[in-house]
Amino acid sequence: MPQAKGEKHWIIPDGYIPPASSGSLESHESVCVLNVSSEEALLHFTIYFEDRDPIEDIPVVVPPRRTKHIRTSSLAKNGASIPAGVPYAIEVRSDIPVIVQYSRLDATQAENALMSVVAYPVK
Amino acid sequence: MPQAKGEKHWIIPDGYIPPASSGSLESHESVCVLNVSSEEALLHFTIYFEDRDPIEDIPVVVPPRRTKHIRTSSLAKNGASIPAGVPYAIEVRSDIPVIVQYSRLDATQAENALMSVVAYPVK
Amino acid sequence: MPQAKGEKHWIIPDGYIPPASSGSLESHESVCVLNVSSEEALLHFTIYFEDRDPIEDIPVVVPPRRTKHIRTSSLAKNGASIPAGVPYAIEVRSDIPVIVQYSRLDATQAENALMSVVAYPVK
Amino acid sequence: MPQAKGEKHWIIPDGYIPPASSGSLESHESVCVLNVSSEEALLHFTIYFEDRDPIEDIPVVVPPRRTKHIRTSSLAKNGASIPAGVPYAIEVRSDIPVIVQYSRLDATQAENALMSVVAYPVK
Repeated sequence: MPQAKGEKHWIIPDGYIPPASSGSLESHESVCVLNVSSEEALLHFTIYFEDRDPIEDIPVVVPPRRTKHIRTSSLAKNGASIPAGVPYAIEVRSDIPVIVQYSRLDATQAENALMSVVAYPVK
Repeated sequence: MPQAKGEKHWIIPDGYIPPASSGSLESHESVCVLNVSSEEALLHFTIYFEDRDPIEDIPVVVPPRRTKHIRTSSLAKNGASIPAGVPYAIEVRSDIPVIVQYSRLDATQAENALMSVVAYPVK
Repeated sequence: MPQAKGEKHWIIPDGYIPPASSGSLESHESVCVLNVSSEEALLHFTIYFEDRDPIEDIPVVVPPRRTKHIRTSSLAKNGASIPAGVPYAIEVRSDIPVIVQYSRLDATQAENALMSVVAYPVK
Repeated sequence: MPQAKGEKHWIIPDGYIPPASSGSLESHESVCVLNVSSEEALLHFTIYFEDRDPIEDIPVVVPPRRTKHIRTSSLAKNGASIPAGVPYAIEVRSDIPVIVQYSRLDATQAENALMSVVAYPVK
């Protein structure tokens, strides 16, 4: 039985959904999670802003032995979601260890730009 | 009461404000800080150069349970700020643990380029 | 005799082979490995997907005192390889410590985009 | 007297000097070092390749309380330097702790692409 690996708590300070797209691709961010274990991982996302209270504890499930690449625009709770064009930050908590990476594709211009970081693991 | 998480001391060796912009976006860098705690965080930035003494201890406040995405061009002390087109480095000290990420948008050309790193935590 | 340095287990959650290329460069990803030791390193790659079982234990050799920049599209086992345009994740195990970085060149548009991360070391 | 911070040994597996430039910027890589201490730091770079022996121990000095952004194309020893268009890897050793980040500007196309990582600290 493959064991869970990684950490249970991850932080991404630089979140931003580009408000515009042009060219053939759409601007978006992905939070990419890998669950190497034979158990399901239950994650909770908290979204922090500069000028308002956080959106807390949005649940996401990652099946055993699977990756999930989660579009941040799909995260929602009680009708609240992340607005485009606003600086924010992401906290991910998981009930078992997982590994988390964040990537952004900015297609504001016709030609796209990419950035990626492995999230900061809180130990 | 949510507890502070992260580290109190962070380093970003590659700072550079692109001197030119074209297209619809402006070249800039952001130092993105997340304070997950219920207390205010008081940060001090020190800016290092290749050929002159550092600009020391520029204060920045990050409110409780908030993120702040700080444009490096806004950092100033006693009339001294970071010139564009010059290689420099950033040191961030905080009175409570926070998490720090650095991102650069280079819009020198009409189409933009992005890079990002989680800052190096000094432990 | 130079000793092995780094870790034996590395994770990259955000794998994606862009399906299209235009301009003078071809879209691709590289897993870049450095073996500083005087012994050969034997690596095994496992590829995780969102909706199907992993491709397990694809072997790769990195000679002593050499780097190897491995195109993910070249990884294959029993006729199975990584399809383009599909989100996936990468696990690298090595019999001796090595260091692993992941980079993607996206040339979907005529102008290319780059992203890179040092892989997450499992300790 | 400010104390040295960081690590004495850093690795960057993905080195590559793009062979071509177009547009207003030149393709290049920078190894960005910060020395926060009041002492000079003496670094030695070793360059690893896929198919030949390393170039060992290229010396670089970083003055006290300064950053240095080193173009990899400037690294040379006994007439040997890093060829463009060839995959390689970088090892940095320092006599006192420093912090190391690696960034690449690819201007192969008219519009540039950027990537950056904090180097891997060997502890």
